[in-house]
Amino acid sequence: MTSVPKSGLVVTAHPGDFVWRAGGAIALHAAKGYRLKIVCLSYGERGESQWAWKSAGVRLEDVKAQRRAEAEEAAAILGAEIEFFDVGDYPLRVGEAELDRLVDVYRELNPAFVLTHALEDPYNFDHPVAAHLAQEARVIAQAAGHKPDHERRYSAPPVFLFEPHQPEQCNFKPQVILNIDSVWATKQRAFRVLAAQRHLWDYYERVALNRGVQGGRNSGTAMTYGEAYQRLFPMAAEVLS
Amino acid sequence: MTSVPKSGLVVTAHPGDFVWRAGGAIALHAAKGYRLKIVCLSYGERGESQWAWKSAGVRLEDVKAQRRAEAEEAAAILGAEIEFFDVGDYPLRVGEAELDRLVDVYRELNPAFVLTHALEDPYNFDHPVAAHLAQEARVIAQAAGHKPDHERRYSAPPVFLFEPHQPEQCNFKPQVILNIDSVWATKQRAFRVLAAQRHLWDYYERVALNRGVQGGRNSGTAMTYGEAYQRLFPMAAEVLS
Amino acid sequence: MTSVPKSGLVVTAHPGDFVWRAGGAIALHAAKGYRLKIVCLSYGERGESQWAWKSAGVRLEDVKAQRRAEAEEAAAILGAEIEFFDVGDYPLRVGEAELDRLVDVYRELNPAFVLTHALEDPYNFDHPVAAHLAQEARVIAQAAGHKPDHERRYSAPPVFLFEPHQPEQCNFKPQVILNIDSVWATKQRAFRVLAAQRHLWDYYERVALNRGVQGGRNSGTAMTYGEAYQRLFPMAAEVLS
Amino acid sequence: MTSVPKSGLVVTAHPGDFVWRAGGAIALHAAKGYRLKIVCLSYGERGESQWAWKSAGVRLEDVKAQRRAEAEEAAAILGAEIEFFDVGDYPLRVGEAELDRLVDVYRELNPAFVLTHALEDPYNFDHPVAAHLAQEARVIAQAAGHKPDHERRYSAPPVFLFEPHQPEQCNFKPQVILNIDSVWATKQRAFRVLAAQRHLWDYYERVALNRGVQGGRNSGTAMTYGEAYQRLFPMAAEVLS
Amino acid sequence: MTSVPKSGLVVTAHPGDFVWRAGGAIALHAAKGYRLKIVCLSYGERGESQWAWKSAGVRLEDVKAQRRAEAEEAAAILGAEIEFFDVGDYPLRVGEAELDRLVDVYRELNPAFVLTHALEDPYNFDHPVAAHLAQEARVIAQAAGHKPDHERRYSAPPVFLFEPHQPEQCNFKPQVILNIDSVWATKQRAFRVLAAQRHLWDYYERVALNRGVQGGRNSGTAMTYGEAYQRLFPMAAEVLS
Amino acid sequence: MTSVPKSGLVVTAHPGDFVWRAGGAIALHAAKGYRLKIVCLSYGERGESQWAWKSAGVRLEDVKAQRRAEAEEAAAILGAEIEFFDVGDYPLRVGEAELDRLVDVYRELNPAFVLTHALEDPYNFDHPVAAHLAQEARVIAQAAGHKPDHERRYSAPPVFLFEPHQPEQCNFKPQVILNIDSVWATKQRAFRVLAAQRHLWDYYERVALNRGVQGGRNSGTAMTYGEAYQRLFPMAAEVLS
Repeated sequence: MTSVPKSGLVVTAHPGDFVWRAGGAIALHAAKGYRLKIVCLSYGERGESQWAWKSAGVRLEDVKAQRRAEAEEAAAILGAEIEFFDVGDYPLRVGEAELDRLVDVYRELNPAFVLTHALEDPYNFDHPVAAHLAQEARVIAQAAGHKPDHERRYSAPPVFLFEPHQPEQCNFKPQVILNIDSVWATKQRAFRVLAAQRHLWDYYERVALNRGVQGGRNSGTAMTYGEAYQRLFPMAAEVLS
Repeated sequence: MTSVPKSGLVVTAHPGDFVWRAGGAIALHAAKGYRLKIVCLSYGERGESQWAWKSAGVRLEDVKAQRRAEAEEAAAILGAEIEFFDVGDYPLRVGEAELDRLVDVYRELNPAFVLTHALEDPYNFDHPVAAHLAQEARVIAQAAGHKPDHERRYSAPPVFLFEPHQPEQCNFKPQVILNIDSVWATKQRAFRVLAAQRHLWDYYERVALNRGVQGGRNSGTAMTYGEAYQRLFPMAAEVLS
Repeated sequence: MTSVPKSGLVVTAHPGDFVWRAGGAIALHAAKGYRLKIVCLSYGERGESQWAWKSAGVRLEDVKAQRRAEAEEAAAILGAEIEFFDVGDYPLRVGEAELDRLVDVYRELNPAFVLTHALEDPYNFDHPVAAHLAQEARVIAQAAGHKPDHERRYSAPPVFLFEPHQPEQCNFKPQVILNIDSVWATKQRAFRVLAAQRHLWDYYERVALNRGVQGGRNSGTAMTYGEAYQRLFPMAAEVLS
Repeated sequence: MTSVPKSGLVVTAHPGDFVWRAGGAIALHAAKGYRLKIVCLSYGERGESQWAWKSAGVRLEDVKAQRRAEAEEAAAILGAEIEFFDVGDYPLRVGEAELDRLVDVYRELNPAFVLTHALEDPYNFDHPVAAHLAQEARVIAQAAGHKPDHERRYSAPPVFLFEPHQPEQCNFKPQVILNIDSVWATKQRAFRVLAAQRHLWDYYERVALNRGVQGGRNSGTAMTYGEAYQRLFPMAAEVLS
Repeated sequence: MTSVPKSGLVVTAHPGDFVWRAGGAIALHAAKGYRLKIVCLSYGERGESQWAWKSAGVRLEDVKAQRRAEAEEAAAILGAEIEFFDVGDYPLRVGEAELDRLVDVYRELNPAFVLTHALEDPYNFDHPVAAHLAQEARVIAQAAGHKPDHERRYSAPPVFLFEPHQPEQCNFKPQVILNIDSVWATKQRAFRVLAAQRHLWDYYERVALNRGVQGGRNSGTAMTYGEAYQRLFPMAAEVLS
Repeated sequence: MTSVPKSGLVVTAHPGDFVWRAGGAIALHAAKGYRLKIVCLSYGERGESQWAWKSAGVRLEDVKAQRRAEAEEAAAILGAEIEFFDVGDYPLRVGEAELDRLVDVYRELNPAFVLTHALEDPYNFDHPVAAHLAQEARVIAQAAGHKPDHERRYSAPPVFLFEPHQPEQCNFKPQVILNIDSVWATKQRAFRVLAAQRHLWDYYERVALNRGVQGGRNSGTAMTYGEAYQRLFPMAAEVLS
């Protein structure tokens, strides 16, 4: 493990999700030298592209291409690789092929953490599907009998759930507030790639500012911009802090 | 804050609690140079000293003296100071005097963490009383208008709830598993001071071994002995791990 | 939106469900001039028709025809349209075709509310399947890229979960108690169509009476018959009441 | 009940609470002609007045007088009466006298709603004390045998819990989002009376804006500024909406 | 333990509670030869006697005497002893004297079970006070150092919470449904002693009938009248059934 | 029902599960003369056989055969029949064929209880799939219209969830602690068949010992080895104990 840089994995249903919800964590760890990889299951072409469908005669392929370009640009700004599974959205459905590919990704990457959606979201049923896939692949990647010829250096990483749009309705409970002050400008640049969702720029800036205030209150150390995460598993610790 | 050593505070209802539930954390941080202080609200004289009452004519004061001596010895083994509030147990009741004194302790110590009981315990009603006191004093210590002449260097510390005897019935959920391998022998020596509760030595050794297995599973790094804690507040973080 | 009458949608797994659980709401809103539509996913032919199978040689098609006739009669009494998806019951399974059709129904109807099952029911696994379908279709109907040529006047309605048979085991929590006094006689007439489930007539009359008592207690205004609902989403309000 | 104007009651631990958390509801209902009354249990003199204690030699009475003046000014801006119980804060303790007086207030006012704190708040133990008092007095006011000579026109009102500072940590779940657009300017003027808590002006403006976005999403009707509430009891309804 | 008959303890806030909520269990076990004892903390004189206060000039002592007579009659019908603590209701407050007396009762009786209120009840704050007292005394009775001269034959009994008026709002979850068919007539006779709460006769008959249906559904064995209980602690078992 | 011996059904995802989690209950009831049947959905060949894959060139069929032999031996030691569904593991997927077969098993066996996995398990996604199948088949077996020619003597049995590896993370709450002292030696012999999971022998012995201590504490009757179960449904009772 000495010479391989650390890495992180992000599994999202739609492109907007990795920007609004995890853009700070991605940029922060990329800046620290981590290899960051986003697996984006769809282009958000049907449900997250309301504006694109306003003109008559729009073709699905055009919307997908446009969203893909945006997502690639946003990922690049944040410092991450991106792989699309292109399974469609609204509804997003995954099968054994996606599970299999994601298991491979876990093993290739051996990430230090994985970020994904909250376990429930009554506003968006694509989100828990993505979260379930991320969790199940993480476990299967541990199974010695799954593709037994793979080289073995994989250890199942901690899972951090990023913040959904309406956290209380999703039974989301912040357990970690990540200080993203040093990469806020980068996250904001990624926001601006999502030009059509302009109404969310301010919303998520306010979320970041209020989580920052909370991060400061909970730690006693000032923080301006924060991103909230919920842990799925206990953390092992060598010291309490 | 440079030259003052870090410190930790432990608030328990009875002496056994800090040994069985937090003895590893105490010894571990003491070994790292922290100043550790235990506030033990009672001597466990009525409810945690069943054996002592078996002979006829036992006096309460004698039981208290014996338990106090044991508690002091166990604290010394673990490397901690101990202060008794001597409020009685079964039932344990606290008033404004205890709250006031504990606020002073928080301010004097400015601890990096506080350890206390789970919020619920249907087997022991002294435990949530202690947990509530520990929490309320932690907050009041922040109030500028409480003894405004105190020097101000206090920052409310994170709260870690240690593991109750029957965790599921107390709605206790482990979020941190502390590796106590390096101090297990010390914790075990403290066990042996509590000679009359010998039936618990093995019980809590098994708890430590099984939490150790879980700590290893959750982190991918082997651990033999663990202590489980639940956090009350989100942690601020500079990196996800 | 001026001249179109308001409408309501009800999505149930079996015919009995819309009678016992939501018959009051259906009749009440129909009486107020709403267009009410029931989507009934199965005829309850295998699991809700115990009596029909008691004679030898009964054919599935006959049971379905009988249950369909009953369901149509009950819907007519309550003042609602009914559409059957005929997917079978015990187990009830839905696929993309049902989802697609239900999305169309949402868009055609643009309902002011949707009524469906509680999210959990350990006594009946068809129920959460219906509730999930009702929720997912509600969200997809919002997606501009789903059948983009549809006229757009759809707004995702509030979701009300009706009361399951054993509410506490389903984690059902009443948040709204609807006064159904004015339509109780109608609901009761619909009960009587379900001649073979006679043992439930009294059960659900008692449920209605006790919810009525609770409705009166919670509001200070007397109510004789009530139907309990749980809301899935916050309500926007112009006044607190 | 015809000629008496409707009224509303607000029970808070400290002055800031009714401004930040319920200022919109107060101003909105006052503007609609309701009589609004705030019962403010303390002046927030010790825990909510950090700045005041920064100069040497400050006296408690001076801080209380200053906070009282601010609270009266803020209440007047919002259009409400205010009564102080002056029980002290950090810790806030209430006894039978406060319970008795609050029961009288409920009976005098016969409010259409009562607003108070969330049931849990690990950041502030004064808050659940206030919420408990508000709830218990509401129930005792119903008891015919409590001061049986009182005229009887009291009906226990619905309870709305306003939003705490860190909602997820308090297990607060929004069920009602009140549109406060028409009174936002008034609420903001009340903010500015609390000059020393300037750092919270922006925080709570962001909260209001984000709750407004959520209110619009949940209802389909645009809202700019919102206040979130959780209901304690089921509501009786004549129609589903 | 051979020759002493088994016994059961019931701790309630008001007289109505043991009749409506636990009357079946009391009568059933009395009929089986158990010694049953009710500890009734108040006479329900202020909050549960609305009718008595309707005439002018009623005196508290008269209401108490009347309620006491009724409660004694109802207890006798059910086959139980009754002891009143006469601490007043609305609000009900208990202190060390009541705790001490109840500990004595536990030790005298060494009951096979204790029945008390649900842990939460937002409609009645006397109820959780009674439940807390019942639980705390149960634990203290185990403490060897509490009145060490008492003869020791006490073993802390299982706790069963009886059903509150609005179970879902109290987070009450039925885990045991007791078949009270054989004593229904007795329970109903006890109902009729509470002449002034006539409106509850039918309510609680409906509750018993519907719990009976549920008891039958969950066990496959018909039951007409049931009483629902929630267990606080795991049960030890020699066989699964 | 007189002459047919009682029976019990166990539904697990992998072989290890019935040994570690339910081996005591199986052996205990087999010793009492019950017919015990295990439905084991997979051989645990990919995810529960880490050691087997350590040598190069291992074939899946060989691992399956080896695990099958072990599982059969363990079942025989415990006194149970075993049927394999051989659906594969990591991931375990079930379809209508498995559901249909399991419904037949329920009807053939008419078990007095069914044991299966906890409803959630973030460490192993095969477990909740097995639990869901066990529950759904249990309900469908009640449907008169499912294979109506089957003889009818089936009554849906109580469901007991056995203890997962990390109970708090699975929201598992013990409600029954089964005394397995009389069959501990048998359970331990079954452990030893699972030679490759030797690291779990001690772990699950410690679990059994600590559950035994808890069983004794909760009942007042000593128990050395216990198995914890959570009930899914209320139990009907003729007496409280």
